[in-house]
Amino acid sequence: MATGATELENSIKNIVCIFFDYAEKEGKANTLSKAEFTKLVKEQLPNLMKDAGPLDEKLKALDVNHDQEIKFSEYWTLIGEMGKGIKRETWGKKK
Amino acid sequence: MATGATELENSIKNIVCIFFDYAEKEGKANTLSKAEFTKLVKEQLPNLMKDAGPLDEKLKALDVNHDQEIKFSEYWTLIGEMGKGIKRETWGKKK
Repeated sequence: MATGATELENSIKNIVCIFFDYAEKEGKANTLSKAEFTKLVKEQLPNLMKDAGPLDEKLKALDVNHDQEIKFSEYWTLIGEMGKGIKRETWGKKK
Repeated sequence: MATGATELENSIKNIVCIFFDYAEKEGKANTLSKAEFTKLVKEQLPNLMKDAGPLDEKLKALDVNHDQEIKFSEYWTLIGEMGKGIKRETWGKKK
């Protein structure tokens, strides 16, 4: 990305980079295996996912193509859920 | 959010906060008017949206409920498009 990336642009890039940091650890480099998904959630979403329940069920719910892996678009759905959670927690009560 | 938020959690929160920073400037506090949307794109997405074409058309494409405003979920669609763009630009060619 061009120099002078804004905070918003860097935030979006961080989210993408973190997916690939974990996806490239084992197996296919563009999907999260169950182990990679579990590691990412535990290390990167300890607060936002603390009440998320069993990760097996979360993975199943996200894994819309049922390949037991989390591809980028399925990861992005999870990120969207986290964003909506922050919105409800912070702005939801005001409006 | 609890102290000790991770980089991923902070990145997601930044994206949510920036939406409300602009949405609260005028009119309804939980949607982006055309002026707020234009200001957000020009100030916060100067690199990622530099080739996006006329913003009127972009707003229309995002505005799925046709109220001439951009609500949070429509904003999140835009963010997803940016994320996919970064993915294609950076990882797309490798796989």
